[in-house]
Amino acid sequence: MTANATVNPILVVGSVALDSLETPAGHREECLGGSASYFSVGASHFAPTHVVAVVGEDFPQAYLDHLRSRGVNLEGLEIIPGGRTFRWRGRYGEHFGDAQTLETQLNVFEHFSPKIPAQWRGAKYLFLGNIDPELQGRVLDQVENPHLVALDTMNFWITGKRHALEAVLSRVDLFILNETEARLLSGERNVYKAAEAVQALGPRVVVVKRGEYGALLFHPDGVFAAPAVPLREVIDPTGAGDTFAAGLMGFLARADETDFATLKRAVLTGTVLASFACEGFSLDRVLSLTTAEVEERLARLESLMKV
Amino acid sequence: MTANATVNPILVVGSVALDSLETPAGHREECLGGSASYFSVGASHFAPTHVVAVVGEDFPQAYLDHLRSRGVNLEGLEIIPGGRTFRWRGRYGEHFGDAQTLETQLNVFEHFSPKIPAQWRGAKYLFLGNIDPELQGRVLDQVENPHLVALDTMNFWITGKRHALEAVLSRVDLFILNETEARLLSGERNVYKAAEAVQALGPRVVVVKRGEYGALLFHPDGVFAAPAVPLREVIDPTGAGDTFAAGLMGFLARADETDFATLKRAVLTGTVLASFACEGFSLDRVLSLTTAEVEERLARLESLMKV
Repeated sequence: MTANATVNPILVVGSVALDSLETPAGHREECLGGSASYFSVGASHFAPTHVVAVVGEDFPQAYLDHLRSRGVNLEGLEIIPGGRTFRWRGRYGEHFGDAQTLETQLNVFEHFSPKIPAQWRGAKYLFLGNIDPELQGRVLDQVENPHLVALDTMNFWITGKRHALEAVLSRVDLFILNETEARLLSGERNVYKAAEAVQALGPRVVVVKRGEYGALLFHPDGVFAAPAVPLREVIDPTGAGDTFAAGLMGFLARADETDFATLKRAVLTGTVLASFACEGFSLDRVLSLTTAEVEERLARLESLMKV
Repeated sequence: MTANATVNPILVVGSVALDSLETPAGHREECLGGSASYFSVGASHFAPTHVVAVVGEDFPQAYLDHLRSRGVNLEGLEIIPGGRTFRWRGRYGEHFGDAQTLETQLNVFEHFSPKIPAQWRGAKYLFLGNIDPELQGRVLDQVENPHLVALDTMNFWITGKRHALEAVLSRVDLFILNETEARLLSGERNVYKAAEAVQALGPRVVVVKRGEYGALLFHPDGVFAAPAVPLREVIDPTGAGDTFAAGLMGFLARADETDFATLKRAVLTGTVLASFACEGFSLDRVLSLTTAEVEERLARLESLMKV
């Protein structure tokens, strides 16, 4: 499955990391990870993707090859001479859910300051991966009138950098977060009230992910409830959120449309992409996806909602 | 909203109780409760309902009038001279969820032995409310070749009377349970695996309720995912499960059809009825429902799933 070259490219700013993972299904050392990796590989099935991120000189050539094999444009990937790549070690318990962080080594990521290459500043579609909201704001300062800006974040920034997060949220169109984050950010337990409070911070469109219960899309024209893909086995949920965003943004960029109807299909596509991410360690399953696999699973997902 | 007299009646066996409730929205003493009360009033909007249950002589005439005002047939309601009605006292915490039982007085319910009046033994639609599975089995012994038997239960019977429960489950067509109960009964955390394990116990159709996340219908022809009604305020969730079953069974009895397509609409109708039950204490909101209110909410629910 490859993106048509005439499709609008998506610019993604986030992390490229080496993940060491323990899940009930096994463990892996220093595999390809980070929000920008998951996002760019996922979105590459729909649109050309341009990555702005940083790694150290130790970053494996094989992983660069993986990203390039999907057509991911790495001109914006800084490689710091003598630097060490961002590393994360996490463990998932029996029922998956949130990972327990065992170790974080920021390394070159500690002083990451995203620089958008001049030729990408007019990007129509921009995804601000889960990084410091101050950096997300600095990315927005460098782009010119994008058509759609989407943002991801995490509880760490909601509690630790709320002011900066609210400042950047006032400048984005689409905010993708999970139910726990929506409650934390809004102070509302009810998901409908929480989403409205989040919309009031700026984003016209809010997508609340609910894991095995699906996702809710809040749009000025209405609400859409997407079921989850009926997964029987999870191998590794790392990057599922970024891959969800990738399917969603990839669908929008390819359609070059952001109305309610297109966003609904985009949410279903994100749901499907995320389900594949969970079926293998790291990006194993997402790298090898075919159009037919995505279409087949989309049809299965839609059949669940057919009255 | 009233049931057409030509519609197949539904026979329900369960409890009629006096509930004392504390919820974040307030408290009520000795209001109308019990599975057969919630079910019969809910189902009365779709089909004639016949109740088999027991109360004491202290049961308030006003509550008998409430039930009769909905056309509920009480010929099968035993009133034990000098007896005291089943009482339950429960409290819901800030986030609702399961009630904490503060007090249970079984009273006349302790020696309840359901007797199906001769004229109702040919009932086509039968709902076995949440009572001892041995009693549910004795009800089945008294009916002749029903078209559809549905059953509800609770964790208390799953852990305490598993053998009797499995025996009765092998004789029913439709089993309605919540996600926690499905996991408890099957030993499977994954809801798809859990539902299949439950189906393997006998019921051809299994409905797994997931509270604010909606419900899943498992049918030999496929799976259907119903979203929840977007409720902003909950007053009292007592009886929501029985009212869900009432909308579901009421829809089936009125349609006189139990195929997959009809069951999907029945699940949506149950979802809507249950949402009304949560919006008032006891049966307040369900007693006063109009056809227009049900239709309007069904349309709103379906709009959530429209791709």
